[in-house]
Amino acid sequence: MRHFLSTEDWSRDELQALIDRARAYRDSPLGDALKGKSIALVFFNPSLRTRTSFDLGAFQLGGHAIVLDAKGATWPVEIEPGAVMDGGPEEHVREAARVLSRYVDLIAIRCFPKFEDWKAEREDPLIRAYAEHATVPVINMETIVHPCQELALMMALQDWLGEVRGKTFLLSWVPHPKPLNTAVANSAILIASKFGMNVRVLAPDETYALDPRYMGAAERFCSEAGADFSFTTDIEAGYAGAHAVYAKSWGALPYYGRWDEEAAVRAKGEGFMVDEAKLARADDAVVSHCLPMRRNVKIADSVVDSDRFLGIEEAENRLHVQKAIMERLAGGAA
Amino acid sequence: MRHFLSTEDWSRDELQALIDRARAYRDSPLGDALKGKSIALVFFNPSLRTRTSFDLGAFQLGGHAIVLDAKGATWPVEIEPGAVMDGGPEEHVREAARVLSRYVDLIAIRCFPKFEDWKAEREDPLIRAYAEHATVPVINMETIVHPCQELALMMALQDWLGEVRGKTFLLSWVPHPKPLNTAVANSAILIASKFGMNVRVLAPDETYALDPRYMGAAERFCSEAGADFSFTTDIEAGYAGAHAVYAKSWGALPYYGRWDEEAAVRAKGEGFMVDEAKLARADDAVVSHCLPMRRNVKIADSVVDSDRFLGIEEAENRLHVQKAIMERLAGGAA
Amino acid sequence: MRHFLSTEDWSRDELQALIDRARAYRDSPLGDALKGKSIALVFFNPSLRTRTSFDLGAFQLGGHAIVLDAKGATWPVEIEPGAVMDGGPEEHVREAARVLSRYVDLIAIRCFPKFEDWKAEREDPLIRAYAEHATVPVINMETIVHPCQELALMMALQDWLGEVRGKTFLLSWVPHPKPLNTAVANSAILIASKFGMNVRVLAPDETYALDPRYMGAAERFCSEAGADFSFTTDIEAGYAGAHAVYAKSWGALPYYGRWDEEAAVRAKGEGFMVDEAKLARADDAVVSHCLPMRRNVKIADSVVDSDRFLGIEEAENRLHVQKAIMERLAGGAA
Repeated sequence: MRHFLSTEDWSRDELQALIDRARAYRDSPLGDALKGKSIALVFFNPSLRTRTSFDLGAFQLGGHAIVLDAKGATWPVEIEPGAVMDGGPEEHVREAARVLSRYVDLIAIRCFPKFEDWKAEREDPLIRAYAEHATVPVINMETIVHPCQELALMMALQDWLGEVRGKTFLLSWVPHPKPLNTAVANSAILIASKFGMNVRVLAPDETYALDPRYMGAAERFCSEAGADFSFTTDIEAGYAGAHAVYAKSWGALPYYGRWDEEAAVRAKGEGFMVDEAKLARADDAVVSHCLPMRRNVKIADSVVDSDRFLGIEEAENRLHVQKAIMERLAGGAA
Repeated sequence: MRHFLSTEDWSRDELQALIDRARAYRDSPLGDALKGKSIALVFFNPSLRTRTSFDLGAFQLGGHAIVLDAKGATWPVEIEPGAVMDGGPEEHVREAARVLSRYVDLIAIRCFPKFEDWKAEREDPLIRAYAEHATVPVINMETIVHPCQELALMMALQDWLGEVRGKTFLLSWVPHPKPLNTAVANSAILIASKFGMNVRVLAPDETYALDPRYMGAAERFCSEAGADFSFTTDIEAGYAGAHAVYAKSWGALPYYGRWDEEAAVRAKGEGFMVDEAKLARADDAVVSHCLPMRRNVKIADSVVDSDRFLGIEEAENRLHVQKAIMERLAGGAA
Repeated sequence: MRHFLSTEDWSRDELQALIDRARAYRDSPLGDALKGKSIALVFFNPSLRTRTSFDLGAFQLGGHAIVLDAKGATWPVEIEPGAVMDGGPEEHVREAARVLSRYVDLIAIRCFPKFEDWKAEREDPLIRAYAEHATVPVINMETIVHPCQELALMMALQDWLGEVRGKTFLLSWVPHPKPLNTAVANSAILIASKFGMNVRVLAPDETYALDPRYMGAAERFCSEAGADFSFTTDIEAGYAGAHAVYAKSWGALPYYGRWDEEAAVRAKGEGFMVDEAKLARADDAVVSHCLPMRRNVKIADSVVDSDRFLGIEEAENRLHVQKAIMERLAGGAA
C-alpha cells in the first residue's frame, strides 16, 4: 500500500503516468474507478479548490467524498505515542486513523504548519502519524509540501512548453502582507527539478532560502538531469532567459515563530511583484501561481490577464490529477 | 448562456414553464437531467432550506452539489477591477468565478447585503461580478432578491387560487426584533405583479417603501396586466378583499446603516402581525411566509396552523422549482 | 411509522434483527435499499464517526445524506408550543420538522443536553419535538441516549463473546477532565440488560448513579432475564469475574448545572482508569469504549493496544448498524 505524501517518494515515470492519466480524464471526465468507494477529506485549514476538486473528482468516478472540517466540527487529535491525554485533545491519531480506515478507502489530509516551531513542523508530524496508523492510503492535500499542486503545475507546463527538460524554471518570491507557508514553494522546486528543468529560486534576502531538505533534493534532481540549480537575490539574474516564472510568497524560516522581526526583511521585497518589465528579461516566459492570488501585489493585472498566465489551467488540472491519484491509490483501473 | 439572477430577466411564459416543470418533478421526483453534472453552492450566509433543497435536487437528478461555506471555510473575495489587493481578500472574483467554472456546470450563490450602504448594495455587486466572470450559469440563492422563492410562492398560489391574474396580493410588513433584508419583499411584489395580480404593499410607515427599482417594476408589470399597484400604511385598506396575504419583515431603507434610529419607526408596526381579526377583512385569503418565521410575532399560531397557511407547501416547492431551474440552465432535457 | 429514538421502544428480537442485518452489510457493503432516497443529518454538536458513517452508509445504499450543522450554519429552533417568538430562535420546530420531512425520507438528529437543568433535559425535548412534528422517521444520533452506539456495541460483544446472556457486563466510570453527557452510559446499561447480561455500574461515588429512568429500566430488563443488576463504588467487586468492561466518563447528575462543586467528588475517581491490574480480577474480559477516548486517562495504552480491546470494531459497526436502521425505517428491503 502506497501513500501520496510527497513526490519525493514517487519516480518521475510514475508521476508522468499520473499526469498522462489526468489528461485522459480532461478529455473524458466520467468513469467508474471509484464506484462504491469513498474518500475522507480531512481539513484542518480552509479550502476552496481542493475541497471542490476532490469532492467532484470522487463523484465523477462513481465514488463519494466525505468532508470533515477538523477545526471545530471534529475532535482535536493527539499524535504523541504514550501521551497521557489529560489536555485538550479528546482523541489519539491511532484511533482516528484506524477508524476512518474502517469506513473509507482513501484519506486525504490538509494540515498547514502552525508557524510556531519549524524544527518540529518540518517533520510533517500529523500527516506522517495518520499515514503510520491508517490502513488505507493517505493523500496530502497540503502540509509543508503540496504534491497535488505539483502535478497540476507540471501538467500545465508541459501543455504550454512541450518537453520541459532543459528549460529554465524561476520560482520568484513575491510580496504578501503576511508570512505564508513554504509548502508550494518547496513543491515547485521539487517538481521542476524532478522533471529536469534548470531551477532558480529568487528572493529578496538569503533568509528566504527554503528548508535544506527541499533545496538539497532539488539540487540533487537537477544534478542528476544535468541541469542547474541556483538561489539568487538578483532580480535581473533571476529572470534572464527564464521559460517559466512561478510566483509565490513565503515566510523566512530563520524568523519562524518570531514573525514580527521578519517584517523588516520582508520590506526588502517590495519590488518583487511579477510584472511586464521583469518579464521582458525572460524568454517569452509563461507565468503561474497556485490560487488564491492577490492581484497587483503578487502579479500585475496585465500579466494575469494575458495569454501567458496559466494559473486557471493549473487550478483546473487539480481536478484531473487528483482523479488520477485517487484511482491509482484505490486500486481501480489505470 | 443565461443566468438566473432575477425574474426581471425572464418572461412570464418562461417562468410559467419552470413552474410547470416543477409540478412534473413533484409528481415524479427522480430523473437524469444532471447526470454526471455538478453545481457549486456558495453560501456567504446561513441556510437550511436552500442548502437542503439544492443539494437534494441535484442528487435526485443524477448530479452532485458541492457546498462551499464562504464564511470562514473559504477565502474572502475582492470584486473591484484593478484593485491592489493588499487588504483582507486573498482572491479576486475573476479567479474564483473562472476556476469554479472549470470544475462545475452551475454556480449558485447566496450573499445577503451587509446592511451598511444600500447605494452600493442595491447593485448586487458580488453576484453580478460572479455572473460576469463565470463561464457557467449562475443562480441566485438570495441576495437583494430571491427568485427561487418567487417561483415556489407562485407555484403555491396557483395551486391554491387557480388562475391568479386579477386576484389581489397583499405584501404585509410584519414585526421582527431586527431589521431584515428586503430581498423576499422585493421578490414577492415582482412575481405577483408579473403574473398579473393586483399588488398592495402594507407597512407601518412610508419609510418602509421598497427600493424604487422594485416598486417601479411591480407598478409597471401591474399596469401592463391591467392590475392595480398601491402602497398603504392603513391595515384595513390593505387587507380589504385580499386573496393572498404574504407576511414579511424588512428594514426601512432610509435608515440603512443607521439602524438604531430605525427602532422608533419600527415601533409603529407593533400591531402588524397577521391574525384572524385582520384576515376577516380579506376575501377568504390564503397566507404565506418564506421560512424561517417567528410564530406569534409575524403570524399568529391560529393562522399558521389553519388550512389557509401555505408556507410549508411554498418551502417544499423550493425543491421542485430549483430542479426545474438547474435542468433548464444546465442544458438537460426539459 | 416508527422512529429510532431509544432502544427502549424496540424489542430485543427487533434489535437482534438489526444487528443480523448489519452483519450482512459488513460482508457485502453495497445495496440499493435507499436508492433515490435521502436523509438529513442535523448536528447540534460536533461529530467525526457519526457524520462519516451515516453519510457513507447512505451512499453505499444508493441514497444521499445532507449534513446540516445546526450550530451557526442554520437557524436556532424554538420548541415550546404557543411561544411568542420574540427572542433568539427564528424558527419553530413545527416548521423545521415539517419542511425537512417534505424534502427527505429520514431525519437524524444529534443534540446533547446543555448541562444546565437536568430536570428539563432528561425529557429529551428537542428530538421528541422533532419526532412529534416530523412526518418521516427520526433517528437519534445521540441525545441523552445513543441507541446507534448500543447496537454497535452489542454487535461487537456478540462477535467476541458469542451468546452474551448470563455473562457479566461492567460499566466503569473513568476519569476525564470535564463532566460529560450520560448518554453512552445510559445506553450501555440499557442494551446489556436488554440482552440478558448481568449488569454492574461502577463509579467513585453514589452521586454518579445514572438517572432512575435508565437504572430502573436496566434493573427491570435484568430481572426479566434472570440476571443481576448492581451499582457499586468498589473497584474490586466491580471487576470480579466480569466478561466485558465498558469504560465511560460522565458527570454526576446531582451537581448538574453546578459543575464547579462536582470537582471534589470527581477527584475521588482518580484511580478508576481501566488498566491491566484491574482487569486481572475479571474473567479474561474484553474492553471497549465509544470513541473519542483519552488514552492513559480513561484506559491504559497496554489495554487499548491489546487483542481484548474492541473499540475499533465497535466504531466500525456504527456504519453497519446504521445502514440496517436506515433501511428498516425507510421501508426498503429487510
